[in-house]
Amino acid sequence: MKKSIVTLLTDFGTQDHYIGSMKGVILSINPLCSLVDITHEVSAYDIKEGAFILANAYSSFPKGTIHVAVVDPGVGGTRKPILLVTSHYLFLGPDNGLFTFALRKEKIKQVVALTNKKYFLPQISVTFHGRDIFAPVAGHLSLGVKPKNFGEEIDKWAELIFPKPRVAGGNWVGEIFHIDAFGNLVSNIDKQPFHNANDHSIVINVGKKTIHGLKKGYWEGKRGELIALFGSRGFLEISVREGNVQKMLKVNKGDKIQIHLRSER
Amino acid sequence: MKKSIVTLLTDFGTQDHYIGSMKGVILSINPLCSLVDITHEVSAYDIKEGAFILANAYSSFPKGTIHVAVVDPGVGGTRKPILLVTSHYLFLGPDNGLFTFALRKEKIKQVVALTNKKYFLPQISVTFHGRDIFAPVAGHLSLGVKPKNFGEEIDKWAELIFPKPRVAGGNWVGEIFHIDAFGNLVSNIDKQPFHNANDHSIVINVGKKTIHGLKKGYWEGKRGELIALFGSRGFLEISVREGNVQKMLKVNKGDKIQIHLRSER
Amino acid sequence: MKKSIVTLLTDFGTQDHYIGSMKGVILSINPLCSLVDITHEVSAYDIKEGAFILANAYSSFPKGTIHVAVVDPGVGGTRKPILLVTSHYLFLGPDNGLFTFALRKEKIKQVVALTNKKYFLPQISVTFHGRDIFAPVAGHLSLGVKPKNFGEEIDKWAELIFPKPRVAGGNWVGEIFHIDAFGNLVSNIDKQPFHNANDHSIVINVGKKTIHGLKKGYWEGKRGELIALFGSRGFLEISVREGNVQKMLKVNKGDKIQIHLRSER
Repeated sequence: MKKSIVTLLTDFGTQDHYIGSMKGVILSINPLCSLVDITHEVSAYDIKEGAFILANAYSSFPKGTIHVAVVDPGVGGTRKPILLVTSHYLFLGPDNGLFTFALRKEKIKQVVALTNKKYFLPQISVTFHGRDIFAPVAGHLSLGVKPKNFGEEIDKWAELIFPKPRVAGGNWVGEIFHIDAFGNLVSNIDKQPFHNANDHSIVINVGKKTIHGLKKGYWEGKRGELIALFGSRGFLEISVREGNVQKMLKVNKGDKIQIHLRSER
Repeated sequence: MKKSIVTLLTDFGTQDHYIGSMKGVILSINPLCSLVDITHEVSAYDIKEGAFILANAYSSFPKGTIHVAVVDPGVGGTRKPILLVTSHYLFLGPDNGLFTFALRKEKIKQVVALTNKKYFLPQISVTFHGRDIFAPVAGHLSLGVKPKNFGEEIDKWAELIFPKPRVAGGNWVGEIFHIDAFGNLVSNIDKQPFHNANDHSIVINVGKKTIHGLKKGYWEGKRGELIALFGSRGFLEISVREGNVQKMLKVNKGDKIQIHLRSER
Repeated sequence: MKKSIVTLLTDFGTQDHYIGSMKGVILSINPLCSLVDITHEVSAYDIKEGAFILANAYSSFPKGTIHVAVVDPGVGGTRKPILLVTSHYLFLGPDNGLFTFALRKEKIKQVVALTNKKYFLPQISVTFHGRDIFAPVAGHLSLGVKPKNFGEEIDKWAELIFPKPRVAGGNWVGEIFHIDAFGNLVSNIDKQPFHNANDHSIVINVGKKTIHGLKKGYWEGKRGELIALFGSRGFLEISVREGNVQKMLKVNKGDKIQIHLRSER
């Protein structure tokens, strides 16, 4: 038996038996497996949100970690259960784009459609492939079973489109792509175009507010002051020190965030 | 020391120190113990809900797993702390019926009332037996201490009544027994009487709605369409693809679900 | 490599990638580390609440446990990241008072300001020191790296003030210091002054209600009856059997609780 790490990310919530059942199945196959929850509170059926959280977490784990992600509105239908092998990690879940954002920085080596029932539970329900397919496959993978044993190699898989900000006349128009537990707004605008800019010359519009200048960290803001900074995910974030921006501005995912450089005369 | 698996199911929530304290006590006795949360979000004091979730999860775990369950409105009173040993598992918790549904498929070998204070914490509070009694007993059990060492064998224990559906004239009247995190309605009507029926001939009434026919899986429904299927727990469930039935129908636990076969001419 | 226990307490919530990222970093450094969540649902930025929960949980863990606590509104600012070593435990987190209540029963042996970047992640964000500083330091500590290697020893650190009840004329005026997941009110009034008192002679005022006498446990109350007892944390608690006192009395943290002995003639 082998000590391996398996992470779990789902939209199953933690109030029911779902996560316990998945862990039980994995541990029945490999009792030495080390199980780590990323989150089980992805908004129900929200593949894009799951993909974003996974992309922000997966690379902190040791090479060889098996990442199981199940946000799976099409469970039991025609979407394939798949295994993606990259140079550093293994990803296991439904083929619906859930791995897209994590894969942007990974080199894909092999993608397998899971078809070999030898590695599934004996009875496959139509509604809970997390327990019946993904958990047992994760268990066997963690014991060192080779990817090709789980099914046929495939060369096409689903991908989500990351909504890139529109750029026009020095004006970037992005969106609120994610909102964290503190109410911080995470945009889809990354640091690259601005990394040489003078922080003071940057102007941001969000909700009905205008923010002048970037901060280096939350502590630079006064309590209750709206601030903008490039956060730990590498994207422009809007925050308020010791407060909740989402509630303050009454904004939602998908709402516009604009950023431009003030012309300096 | 021994690598064993201990699961935890409670209504303690995860916002306070309760679960951490229980785990600390177990690990102080057996640091190699592998701890797995089933859930800590059973509705406060709801023994029946806890019993149902445990019944849906326990058998996914390896033989020999110790299942600790604490939904315990009578803590500190006359209800006994007990240990139930079956052919495959060990169950630890208050004697209030919490294990009833799990035990339906288990062969009970031994039931012990926990009285031996040698295996409790030195000081027993009246409000937190999870930490002071069940956790240390779980720790010692996981090290291989024999069940009989924890107290006297008993031959009576509390049992809940599972509310069976009423059957009259080809009409089954059950209830919404559980609602999961997606808002799916889980009934107390099991598949057995219907497993030879033509799925199309089945008619279901729930809330003010009528559903014609069973689906094989969520994917067969259109978005927003109310569907009925026998779910991964083996019971009739009402669901809506990528939506929340409970909110849609404004129903609650205990509400009626009716099912009958349409007469075919 | 070493099997060590690391606990985590934060206000990060469990819906985002934060906790997963921290665990990934620790396991990348010491894959044999045993990770235990105390809670991640401390109210956002509430250092005092975090300090109280930690104080109630930390001592249940085996000696040598590394307790990582991150409730850190000043992240990235001037507050130091620190390591406190006591006779029994190691505490890791921001120097903002978060360890005050846990330290009251511990003998402090050494306090170190974390400055040695060799033990941090290569890139330190200004908003996520949980991942970039505390997690890697915890990982290295768990491998046996000596405290002094992480930075300079210091002899001053932040402390919170525990709000002691006012005593006047046999009347103790305390406050609701904490409210647990069941809605139980935990005060700052400890048992010591009352441990010889006749329980029946005690009178408590909370909200608009008066409670006569102490109970030994919840089970002594009738359903719906307001009761007072000294709970598992050692403080006076107000509770209601199988109900939620906070909702019943509409009280909040910080509200007054009064206790006095009825004169016996």
